[in-house]
Amino acid sequence: MNELEKIVLKSHEAKSVAANLSTEVKNEILILMKEELIKKGDIIIKANRQDYQKAEKDGLSKAMLDRLLLDEKRIVKMAESLQEIADLPDPIGEVISGTTRPNGLKLRQIRVPLGVVLIVYEARPNVTVDAAGLSFKSGNSVILRGGSNSFHSNKTIVSMLQEVLKRKKLPEAIITFIPKPEREVLMELIKFNQYIDVLIPRGGKDLIEMVVENSRIPVIFHAEGICHLFVDESAEKKMCESIVINAKTQRPGVCNAIETLLIHKKYPYIKELLEELIKKKVELRGDPETAKLNSAIKKAVEKDWRTEYLDMILSVKLVDSAKQAIDHINQYGSHHSDGIITESYTHSEKFLKEVDSATVYVNASTRFTDGGEFGFGAEMGISTQKLHVRGPMGLVHMTSTKYVIYGEGQIRS
Amino acid sequence: MNELEKIVLKSHEAKSVAANLSTEVKNEILILMKEELIKKGDIIIKANRQDYQKAEKDGLSKAMLDRLLLDEKRIVKMAESLQEIADLPDPIGEVISGTTRPNGLKLRQIRVPLGVVLIVYEARPNVTVDAAGLSFKSGNSVILRGGSNSFHSNKTIVSMLQEVLKRKKLPEAIITFIPKPEREVLMELIKFNQYIDVLIPRGGKDLIEMVVENSRIPVIFHAEGICHLFVDESAEKKMCESIVINAKTQRPGVCNAIETLLIHKKYPYIKELLEELIKKKVELRGDPETAKLNSAIKKAVEKDWRTEYLDMILSVKLVDSAKQAIDHINQYGSHHSDGIITESYTHSEKFLKEVDSATVYVNASTRFTDGGEFGFGAEMGISTQKLHVRGPMGLVHMTSTKYVIYGEGQIRS
Repeated sequence: MNELEKIVLKSHEAKSVAANLSTEVKNEILILMKEELIKKGDIIIKANRQDYQKAEKDGLSKAMLDRLLLDEKRIVKMAESLQEIADLPDPIGEVISGTTRPNGLKLRQIRVPLGVVLIVYEARPNVTVDAAGLSFKSGNSVILRGGSNSFHSNKTIVSMLQEVLKRKKLPEAIITFIPKPEREVLMELIKFNQYIDVLIPRGGKDLIEMVVENSRIPVIFHAEGICHLFVDESAEKKMCESIVINAKTQRPGVCNAIETLLIHKKYPYIKELLEELIKKKVELRGDPETAKLNSAIKKAVEKDWRTEYLDMILSVKLVDSAKQAIDHINQYGSHHSDGIITESYTHSEKFLKEVDSATVYVNASTRFTDGGEFGFGAEMGISTQKLHVRGPMGLVHMTSTKYVIYGEGQIRS
Repeated sequence: MNELEKIVLKSHEAKSVAANLSTEVKNEILILMKEELIKKGDIIIKANRQDYQKAEKDGLSKAMLDRLLLDEKRIVKMAESLQEIADLPDPIGEVISGTTRPNGLKLRQIRVPLGVVLIVYEARPNVTVDAAGLSFKSGNSVILRGGSNSFHSNKTIVSMLQEVLKRKKLPEAIITFIPKPEREVLMELIKFNQYIDVLIPRGGKDLIEMVVENSRIPVIFHAEGICHLFVDESAEKKMCESIVINAKTQRPGVCNAIETLLIHKKYPYIKELLEELIKKKVELRGDPETAKLNSAIKKAVEKDWRTEYLDMILSVKLVDSAKQAIDHINQYGSHHSDGIITESYTHSEKFLKEVDSATVYVNASTRFTDGGEFGFGAEMGISTQKLHVRGPMGLVHMTSTKYVIYGEGQIRS
């Protein structure tokens, strides 16, 4: 058994301890963890400097560097999320359904932890805190494997969370950090399906594909967000402009921002809408018809309809009907968040029914697809798969169920 | 695009038709399918003879031959399951949850079909009918890939179901049969993750492992059933005997029959219980202590604790405590169905809490883990995984969800 397997086995062995903690104890620990992070903020900042300097040398983009950077204010905000998680109701032990069968057997379906959750991520250090907090509150052992850019920050943060576990006489392995940022270690890690119950990859397309391709552990993944808005013939002009601008520009780097705009050919204000977008410095890439409408519009190529720009770029296509818009979305989209802007009752209901996405909207910005906006509190990501959870993944989705059956000697005949 | 891809693509294209059928239409079709199978029973029997004769030549066991055989009575029973499925409430369109957010957005979480479901199975021809019926009622396109032993029976049955679809002017590809029983075809089939949403393998360990290893399609699997009963010190003698005998012998070839019996050393009637089992022609394989109790008991080896016999064989181990029994089950079991027989309140609750299985019992036979017994109606199998569904998988588990959001121009700030 090599060192990595020993680490994973320890997490596996800690899962029954994690699963059987009371809500009171879990909440107390989450709050102690919050306090620990705030108290030792200067140590986190020091570790973060190491990551930042290396990232600067490696030539990371300004946006990436900003996402990595931690200061006192950000650390407090990050730590506060543990308080929010403590404040959420504990899903473990909830009775989801219950019946008494004709033979007298009493069935109870109860919410239980998943067991050992492996979370692989590339993003900011605050994901470490959210992922650890959500996993802990839902009674799971968690193995965290963060990106190499925030290696020292993540390692320092986890050691502080473990310090609290230790103080409370609990196994540190309830929250495990993999101290090796190498790709080969990740490849080895995702093979331990005998110890790990669920794998949650959070990151770019390449990471997700690599993980799905190479692991036998059941996966909850979040594919990219190629989101659409369809401006119907009857869309109200002002509402339409405000929603389209919001969905594209309010925060273009996130997965629920739109990447493609579909416009009904008979919508009377096509030119005005496109001019508005150009004014907001959005680069437009249009199909041949759209491209003719304004000299600032570049020609879109086939690949544009399948691209998650995560930038101030938008592909635009004119369509003849709601049906054509729906077909385009189902063919090219990533089944994340798509909306229609319309005054037509029939088209709105048709769109909601036929667009095969995790979240579908009428007359609202796609930017609302988010655990916080849905009222779930902190989120583990947004699932675009169809099994287990679809859409924002909150605390309750970090659980499984079991049937508990009370008998009086029943046998099957 | 080769022939197989064309078949799969057709199923993919049919999924939106399947998804949007009304409950009335679906039920009418299910009943027509039932009538079709009964009316043309003689054609099914003819095809079944072909399979049977080949299977006889291939030297299949008597039990396997019996499972394969169809006669008029069995065909009627098989067809009647379509009536039962028609009688079940339609899960599609159910509103699972709904809220109005502070900003006025109206959220509705709605049950929707999975899309295209690939079901790979080895078992009896009636699985073809159940799988097709459950998939159809839950609004999915289904691709059926049955075992080679029942190839002609399956093909004939599916052609009759398709005949009804055709008569009702619906695409036959809503229910697709893969007319190639070769292993290489299966290997190719499970690679079409761009067209297939969910893969459900039903069969032996080798099939499941092969599928999990080689497919990127999200899988709902059913691992083997290494089920246990633990006879506690305080177990009531008569109830204990009756439950143990039932769980082992009532139908030893199924996944919810027990394979290992754990007995508390202080249970006063160990010898009598073992004698009772021997009298019922159960071959016992015991740990060293148990083996001393009766000359008919063979010595168990390590592998016995991990074996799903599916036969009149039972491994037996004496334990010192409920804790030791729980640890054994969590280590060696397959997390399917495990029970305790006890009069101790504390031990019963401890067992229910700490045994990490899909279904846990107090004072009842493990044989009740079954969709019908749980009140779900027909079942697609029993899931031992932790995501999406755990335990019996019924009609409702053949679905996903989507969020439908009604706005009035909301944008995110």
